[in-house]
Amino acid sequence: MLDLLIVGAGPAGLTAALYASRAGISVMVLDKGAPGGKLNLTAEIENYPGAKKKGPELAYDMYEQCLSFGAQYSYGDVQSIQKVEDHFIVNIDKEIETKYVLIATGTKERLMQVKGEVELTGRGVSYCAVCDGPFYKGKEVVVVGGGNSAIEEAIYLSGIVSKVHIVVRRDVLRADAYLVHIAESKDNIQFHYLRKPVEVLEENGKVCGLKVKDSYTDREEVINCSGVFPFIGLDPITDFLKETGVTLNQGYIEVNDHMETDCPGLFAAGDVTNKHLRQVVTACNDGAVAGQYIASLCK
Amino acid sequence: MLDLLIVGAGPAGLTAALYASRAGISVMVLDKGAPGGKLNLTAEIENYPGAKKKGPELAYDMYEQCLSFGAQYSYGDVQSIQKVEDHFIVNIDKEIETKYVLIATGTKERLMQVKGEVELTGRGVSYCAVCDGPFYKGKEVVVVGGGNSAIEEAIYLSGIVSKVHIVVRRDVLRADAYLVHIAESKDNIQFHYLRKPVEVLEENGKVCGLKVKDSYTDREEVINCSGVFPFIGLDPITDFLKETGVTLNQGYIEVNDHMETDCPGLFAAGDVTNKHLRQVVTACNDGAVAGQYIASLCK
Repeated sequence: MLDLLIVGAGPAGLTAALYASRAGISVMVLDKGAPGGKLNLTAEIENYPGAKKKGPELAYDMYEQCLSFGAQYSYGDVQSIQKVEDHFIVNIDKEIETKYVLIATGTKERLMQVKGEVELTGRGVSYCAVCDGPFYKGKEVVVVGGGNSAIEEAIYLSGIVSKVHIVVRRDVLRADAYLVHIAESKDNIQFHYLRKPVEVLEENGKVCGLKVKDSYTDREEVINCSGVFPFIGLDPITDFLKETGVTLNQGYIEVNDHMETDCPGLFAAGDVTNKHLRQVVTACNDGAVAGQYIASLCK
Repeated sequence: MLDLLIVGAGPAGLTAALYASRAGISVMVLDKGAPGGKLNLTAEIENYPGAKKKGPELAYDMYEQCLSFGAQYSYGDVQSIQKVEDHFIVNIDKEIETKYVLIATGTKERLMQVKGEVELTGRGVSYCAVCDGPFYKGKEVVVVGGGNSAIEEAIYLSGIVSKVHIVVRRDVLRADAYLVHIAESKDNIQFHYLRKPVEVLEENGKVCGLKVKDSYTDREEVINCSGVFPFIGLDPITDFLKETGVTLNQGYIEVNDHMETDCPGLFAAGDVTNKHLRQVVTACNDGAVAGQYIASLCK
């Protein structure tokens, strides 16, 4: 039987694998995508301490590092997790038995939930500027949102496209002053405050604009664009956890300071947990704490 | 008046400076040594996720990164900190006024408290294998302790000196299995279990041996050596905090999940706080959480 199965190979999962394997226990990391999680969707990581790298490069370095201490990596899309006496059965296409489980599945982007959004995803609606920005070279795009992610992505896109419209529901930005300053200095970024998205508009099967509504007057207008990038928030990925009965807080997993949930033996780390600050380095912290503690339980 | 003064420029302090300055507030980091703290005393950092670097290299990269966002760095040995109404006065050789203070002073090595230890420090007794190991090329040394630090340092020294004796008080090691395995595979490392140090012995003003006592029989014996490296634990650096009245737990500072102490406006991060796992990445986490939160208070 495996000592530790880690579900999700973002910074939290890979760091847990690093710490646990280095401490001598058997560890497998599962993911349904490439190792690195959201790092792979980020161009430049500016605020990971001591290592300014491109996201995919940091992802690969974390991946290599945990393998070097003996962690295994495997593809797998987890369907459910069951607690059986003193261990767990994790269902992917097969069953894996493990003493401990660490959930490090992170979050997924929140939908705007307006007409046209789902239908036009991949045909002009995108949740990853780094992935899809280059398709909009010389064109106009809309970024929806006023937090750090939205402003960062808008700045990134402004270097590629002809113009970036930022649609912000409130009359202020939640983003850091530093980022706001950069965005405001760009000639080709225009802010649209007090506007909420109403509908993604289509022409010949592709996005041609975003209809928005004034928050006070309800007056509608159309911003012509070829791409819409919503960055309005995130939702934790926890749907496969139902049978375990762990306590969730608005979908996020509650953990103690050893990263253990209220289901003994089941741990969680990184963005999927209920916490104040979701960053690469804080996810790594959680992974280190969980990995080291679980290894100490196996001794 | 400064927004944030950070006392201590290890990974916690530098990361707090990075996050706070990037978020747009004025930040000064003080240290009485080179930036990087204990990173400067560590040869190879194996378990900082995604960036295997030499300690001083990681230190320099963190330092450069926070300066690039506008943080100031200054030499300073803090004597005391006083709360004055809604701000603080920090005394170095001059007085600095600041809205918020973050303590990130870390820990210092615990003394064995045996005869000869203090007198022979710098003449054979050393608390930094990376700094002083090369002086013992071709000679025998003793490492005292059984935790990760002791075993890591012993492995490091075994590549330089002719023989490393590890003196362990108990009959087991607390260190990770991975490290123990490496240490046990080295021909020139010898373990001495159930022995406690009694006296550092001197000849011509230099260390010539360590007298140890059997934990059960009290029988004493001498291990001949040219160097003694105690790695038996750490003590937090908090003596300058007396006037603030913050709550300490065995010397470590108690903080909440925003890294705030029970003295409003006074924060602490990294090894100096009461926490489970003291690592580079967990210190960086604390710094990020504190830096980002303090910046949000300044808005």
